[in-house]
Amino acid sequence: MAGEGFRLDPWGTLEVKDYDRLRRVFGIRPFAEVIPALRELGFEPSLHMRRGILFGHRDFDRVVLEGIRRGERVAVLTGFMPSGRFHFGHKLTADQLIYYQRRLGFKVFVAIADAEAFAVRRIPRGEAYRLAVEEYVANLIALGLDPDKTEFYFQTNRGPAYYRLAQLASGKVTAAEMEAIYGDLSPAKMMAALTQVADILHPQLDEYGGYKRVLVPVGVDQDPHLRLTRDIVDRLSGVVELMRPASTYHKLIRGLDGGKMSSSRPDYTIFLTDPPEVARRKIMRALTGGRATAEEQRRLGGVPEACTVYDLYLYHLIPDDSELLGIYKRCRGGELLCGECKRIAAEKLLEFLEKHQSKLEEARETARSILEPPSF
Amino acid sequence: MAGEGFRLDPWGTLEVKDYDRLRRVFGIRPFAEVIPALRELGFEPSLHMRRGILFGHRDFDRVVLEGIRRGERVAVLTGFMPSGRFHFGHKLTADQLIYYQRRLGFKVFVAIADAEAFAVRRIPRGEAYRLAVEEYVANLIALGLDPDKTEFYFQTNRGPAYYRLAQLASGKVTAAEMEAIYGDLSPAKMMAALTQVADILHPQLDEYGGYKRVLVPVGVDQDPHLRLTRDIVDRLSGVVELMRPASTYHKLIRGLDGGKMSSSRPDYTIFLTDPPEVARRKIMRALTGGRATAEEQRRLGGVPEACTVYDLYLYHLIPDDSELLGIYKRCRGGELLCGECKRIAAEKLLEFLEKHQSKLEEARETARSILEPPSF
Repeated sequence: MAGEGFRLDPWGTLEVKDYDRLRRVFGIRPFAEVIPALRELGFEPSLHMRRGILFGHRDFDRVVLEGIRRGERVAVLTGFMPSGRFHFGHKLTADQLIYYQRRLGFKVFVAIADAEAFAVRRIPRGEAYRLAVEEYVANLIALGLDPDKTEFYFQTNRGPAYYRLAQLASGKVTAAEMEAIYGDLSPAKMMAALTQVADILHPQLDEYGGYKRVLVPVGVDQDPHLRLTRDIVDRLSGVVELMRPASTYHKLIRGLDGGKMSSSRPDYTIFLTDPPEVARRKIMRALTGGRATAEEQRRLGGVPEACTVYDLYLYHLIPDDSELLGIYKRCRGGELLCGECKRIAAEKLLEFLEKHQSKLEEARETARSILEPPSF
Repeated sequence: MAGEGFRLDPWGTLEVKDYDRLRRVFGIRPFAEVIPALRELGFEPSLHMRRGILFGHRDFDRVVLEGIRRGERVAVLTGFMPSGRFHFGHKLTADQLIYYQRRLGFKVFVAIADAEAFAVRRIPRGEAYRLAVEEYVANLIALGLDPDKTEFYFQTNRGPAYYRLAQLASGKVTAAEMEAIYGDLSPAKMMAALTQVADILHPQLDEYGGYKRVLVPVGVDQDPHLRLTRDIVDRLSGVVELMRPASTYHKLIRGLDGGKMSSSRPDYTIFLTDPPEVARRKIMRALTGGRATAEEQRRLGGVPEACTVYDLYLYHLIPDDSELLGIYKRCRGGELLCGECKRIAAEKLLEFLEKHQSKLEEARETARSILEPPSF
């Protein structure tokens, strides 16, 4: 049966090693296949695209590339659940938004999933607001997302047409289908799922700009929302005419122990607001692909694929491919040992954090001015 | 087990003969017990109150009467699903709203349950809008509801704080609880139920006037929504402080064949927009409490309790108690036979309809000016 042993749970934990198999099981196309066409249109792929971190897509060609060809407007939308501090896993999504905004000129929508944070994680709305503004929106802006070209919004504060869409969607799916996708469903999770459908589709409404082409870059654990949304688009035909969204799927960056990077695991997660010394300590304790002894490592070489420090280079800290390749070869060849490599990583990380954090206070002020606190 | 054999289904059909038993099973208090206190406060009970049509309540004393005593503001809220034409079953609720507005000075909220109409009955939103304005709101205004003191709104067009309440509510109930109340639940019904919770509670929010005391007059088939709402109020404590609503329960007027009065059964339902001759024909064919022959009826008398024409007198057409009692006695005594009685009923009905319909065009214009059509 398709998907067996591979049920994706957007609210659970996930450790996926074999992305190719995952892709095939769920009918996600390899992203590499659309890179030549993107280049043909005159756009260099992003770091995540060319490094295969962005490994899969649905309809990127039909929706996004075709939209560019026809000169039609494209919007890119993603959501953040304000359930903790902003970390390098979030930055992965942020970088994609910034790429689409700067290079391809797409309008950006950022959903703050406060409804989901309350429903799933019991996060009070005042706290969700604080996290959204001080952590998520502020870090996105400090990373380079242009607030003038971005629509940030709270799920619980989006307006009638958006909620109408969630309500219409509720009439186009059965409980059995939602259970097949999500497992056992509480009313809160059901409503959060329908709200996410509205998130994904609402930029197509006239009330929100009427963007017919919408791209949703997500971690692969969010694919259930996309599959549900695609089915609902088809079934809403005759009620409201919408277009299936395109979606891209990125690999999930690992935490520093090789497990999940998550704000609930702060020792293994680097936050963009970590003080330099805290970040350095985390790096120095990180799980690497090193051998049992220095002698052995000089002889056999390290395993960058198994190294969480290498993950940081690959995803974030070394944008230059030839520099990255140099480190890879020196590790593989046993020349670069983990101690030195961690010092290099810490230096690069601290340089990044210092520069980033210097922009954060101003970004927070901007964030506060954009998003009003909820009334209750 | 409480409620066994008595599961109320707000979306199903219902034929309830034994209201007293129903009341006891669900812990609804008899309305008669609060009438003396209402009189003590200087208010004459309404026709429906004194005739026992309004047969039950929850917290009418603690919420409504106590509110009047303290000089606090009270709001009354009810909802109409725009799924057909406005009939004498709807008028029963309308009369209560008008009583509370005129006599007790309560602010009135009228929810148009267009979300539910789509979710449960598949009624397209354009049609729901048309029915809401041309049938429900127009008839309510023509019956005497003052549009300046009434807030009519669509569920799908109510604004962020209202939807936030539905989302918060979704986190405070389990799927098992909703199934116990409603039976099998589709996502659409679940969302419609949570939307009704928001309907009932949202007048308490500052955004909608901050009415801490809310009364919800409904048919007894709507009690599941009230019970769910009361539980959710308790559980939301600490998140948002709300007060349990009061509710009253009325008996359901029968259709002219003794079954349900419903817009889906037009032959047995008198609509407030029925042309006079159509209404007369329906009355003349109505099921009565008459005997097999005129001779037998003169000897044994009729049974007004079994008569759908008598229902119309009791609920609507004869506000004067002594006149009603006169008819009751003449029927019981075999003096008044069904043919003559139907002619009396038809005359009263046509007089009412003529007067009512003469106000309808202006009421429709007002309704159109109040409620904007939905964008999709």
